[in-house]
Amino acid sequence: MIVFDDEYFMKMALREAEAALDEGEVPVGAVMVSGQKVIAKSRNQTELLKDSTAHAEMLAITSAANQIGSKYLKECTLYVTLEPCVMCIGASYWAQLGRIVYGASDDKRGYKQAGEYLKHPKTEVSGGVLASESEELIHRFFESVRRKKGY
Amino acid sequence: MIVFDDEYFMKMALREAEAALDEGEVPVGAVMVSGQKVIAKSRNQTELLKDSTAHAEMLAITSAANQIGSKYLKECTLYVTLEPCVMCIGASYWAQLGRIVYGASDDKRGYKQAGEYLKHPKTEVSGGVLASESEELIHRFFESVRRKKGY
Repeated sequence: MIVFDDEYFMKMALREAEAALDEGEVPVGAVMVSGQKVIAKSRNQTELLKDSTAHAEMLAITSAANQIGSKYLKECTLYVTLEPCVMCIGASYWAQLGRIVYGASDDKRGYKQAGEYLKHPKTEVSGGVLASESEELIHRFFESVRRKKGY
Repeated sequence: MIVFDDEYFMKMALREAEAALDEGEVPVGAVMVSGQKVIAKSRNQTELLKDSTAHAEMLAITSAANQIGSKYLKECTLYVTLEPCVMCIGASYWAQLGRIVYGASDDKRGYKQAGEYLKHPKTEVSGGVLASESEELIHRFFESVRRKKGY
């Protein structure tokens, strides 16, 4: 029996993050869900698009809004493998996102370090879902960067 | 003689904001300049695209990055008619934008109210350039919304 719980959708987001890793991107993946239905999947594409705004969350928000034909995503849950940054939490504010579930914390660039109040007051946030799987991918990315640079 | 100063480029951004107003959008316009050359012009398109991330600044950053083929915009100046929000200042952080010049302050949704430190430490910010022209457009927008709603 398939249980459509937070881990189910986070695993899907992790597969997106893995694909990003294969493409040489900082491995972050996202899935947008509305009523147990996946309406958008995305992964970090900042290198591919040479666009620093092309975070997984931004692409998921834009794609989901296109999908449902509304700029508001009040009924949606965003699964993302890494804690959102200031830009992405700002985007979720405007979209009035219903819920955010993230994997690993980002103590350096995560929005919580900048200010928990940056999220929309109606957006529920849960962190730490399959966090170690996400951290493992980030670790592999920085290992490969170090290897390429020869140190 | 044409002087390519902040007011010159802000006037160009104001023309974008006017076009946004004509299109029924919150009137915000932006121009990205690199070495006195305009490399991107944009305006708020959140209604047209039904995408809450389609702020003038986001579109200008993406467009400028495409134009110069780099996700970093260290040598660029963004002229925008309204103080950037949290999302847009977050985007400017990742792009390591050289300079931001804005028109009117946004005491409600501007990033300064959320925290001045949200900008990249190397990004210079100046505000108040042709602020009253920008405020006038915003005022006209909300007037027209009130008129449509009949109050």
